[in-house]
Amino acid sequence: MTIFDEATAVTRRAEGRYEAMLDARFAMVVPGGATPPAINGGALLATVMRAVLAESPLPHPVATSAHFLRVGAIAPAEVHVTWLKHGRTAATARAALVQDGNVILDTTMTVGAVPGPAEAADVGLPVGAAPGTLTWTGPPPGFPAIVNCVDLGQWRGTTADDGTSGYAAQVEVLLDPTTTGWRRGEPSGQPEMRGYFQLRDKQDPDPYVLALALDGLPPVVFGLGATSWAPTVELTWHMRAVPGPGPLAVAARARHVSGGWFDEEAEVWDASGRLVAQSTQIARVGRGALRSAGNGATQVSLLGPTGRS
Amino acid sequence: MTIFDEATAVTRRAEGRYEAMLDARFAMVVPGGATPPAINGGALLATVMRAVLAESPLPHPVATSAHFLRVGAIAPAEVHVTWLKHGRTAATARAALVQDGNVILDTTMTVGAVPGPAEAADVGLPVGAAPGTLTWTGPPPGFPAIVNCVDLGQWRGTTADDGTSGYAAQVEVLLDPTTTGWRRGEPSGQPEMRGYFQLRDKQDPDPYVLALALDGLPPVVFGLGATSWAPTVELTWHMRAVPGPGPLAVAARARHVSGGWFDEEAEVWDASGRLVAQSTQIARVGRGALRSAGNGATQVSLLGPTGRS
Repeated sequence: MTIFDEATAVTRRAEGRYEAMLDARFAMVVPGGATPPAINGGALLATVMRAVLAESPLPHPVATSAHFLRVGAIAPAEVHVTWLKHGRTAATARAALVQDGNVILDTTMTVGAVPGPAEAADVGLPVGAAPGTLTWTGPPPGFPAIVNCVDLGQWRGTTADDGTSGYAAQVEVLLDPTTTGWRRGEPSGQPEMRGYFQLRDKQDPDPYVLALALDGLPPVVFGLGATSWAPTVELTWHMRAVPGPGPLAVAARARHVSGGWFDEEAEVWDASGRLVAQSTQIARVGRGALRSAGNGATQVSLLGPTGRS
Repeated sequence: MTIFDEATAVTRRAEGRYEAMLDARFAMVVPGGATPPAINGGALLATVMRAVLAESPLPHPVATSAHFLRVGAIAPAEVHVTWLKHGRTAATARAALVQDGNVILDTTMTVGAVPGPAEAADVGLPVGAAPGTLTWTGPPPGFPAIVNCVDLGQWRGTTADDGTSGYAAQVEVLLDPTTTGWRRGEPSGQPEMRGYFQLRDKQDPDPYVLALALDGLPPVVFGLGATSWAPTVELTWHMRAVPGPGPLAVAARARHVSGGWFDEEAEVWDASGRLVAQSTQIARVGRGALRSAGNGATQVSLLGPTGRS
């Protein structure tokens, strides 16, 4: 069992009732610093998904909507699952992650079946095709070769004095160098991120790893110089195919930033070049430093970090 | 009061309990034909949104996730609203549209405040800017001039023998001619739609009209020759700014079609050229006719309409 599987495991206690333990190994910063040790949102989502899929009549989380209400603490939690429909093609459940009687994460999941890697190989048709099925895929984002990417590494607060390590010690993020200017105070002026994502355990991708990868790159507004914490308010993702083994390629972009809100659309492609997952989220622009953006960011106004929130 | 406002109105009966009447004027086809008179999904969503916003502490539906479980019938319905969090920047409610004890539409809404049209005018900054706020917008989709667009018109089943008229009689959809080849059996081979949307009443856009417009164009898979009914399974939308008066410009595209599922991302821009709403949905490819797609649709396989559902 990998660290990620352990950290997001659930135990059934009754019909629709699961126990979980939100795990310090997926805290964004470990306890002891000035910042609360919030658990990574993708790890929270994976925890809820495990409870729903444990009792699902259909194999794949086709559509998962998640509203992030409160910060998840390193402490026990419950997952409450209620099924709303059981259909032949799709079934739908509501599920909430609860700590101390408060909803931390509220989700609705529609499950179904998506193509597996074997199907494409079997029929010799375009990737993802199965007999009797219309198949089409748009052009892939321009991913650089993985050897040309830059390791994001760990950040301050990843490891505590006692050796406890949080989220950034569990994942490997390799970034397209054209999306890393913000690291040296020279943001590109474009709200986009591209790179590769995998667990350091080298766990093969599954639906839970996909949920982690979709929000696994730095926030796209870092490309506009807004490099402080950018909390996700709502994230919806669609599983499109069963991923094959190997690192996942992730591309994310924003279309609009205003009023303290930004959107982020992400795609995940597996190592065999198939589009396997998509997400959209809306998040808050962080209140920290805004740096001047270069490279022709003509529509960027940098008036200060106060916002309207 | 416009026909749309009447048809999606709710009446409060108790805390978190509202009554509605799903209205034949927003049925996709009117009663009496071979097809069930399902109510338009955007009208269902607007009905639920009215109940949530009636008791919301914050003005705008920033993030709305909607899972479509069952077809809405022309009959009374209830909306059940439960608030999960009241915050300063955001508040979140679950809300369900229920008929005969079954959930028709299950939603989660996070409300907040987005920039209004006046703010941009007041400060003389880029569209959507407000003091203290980072503002950025990507390039608009290429919308043609409205005078060069093609009226989608009404379809068979819009008007009954007794003169009752459904959804297509309430809205005006003007399509970019490059996205209308499917109408003459010559789909473009690209899963995309662009055009303009407004209520025939000429009601000024508000959040409810935005919810209708985002899914108001024909399904993008019509561009691949799959021109039968394509039911939405899940749709999430983000309100980004208060729209100004005038027709809304809508652009939609897919990224991937396989296993009987397709995604559709849409943007709505108002008549003053501001991006005011975004959505993503996952839907089923209809079981009806697939026509051969021309114009270089190299990744399209057209093997038949059976699918895996």
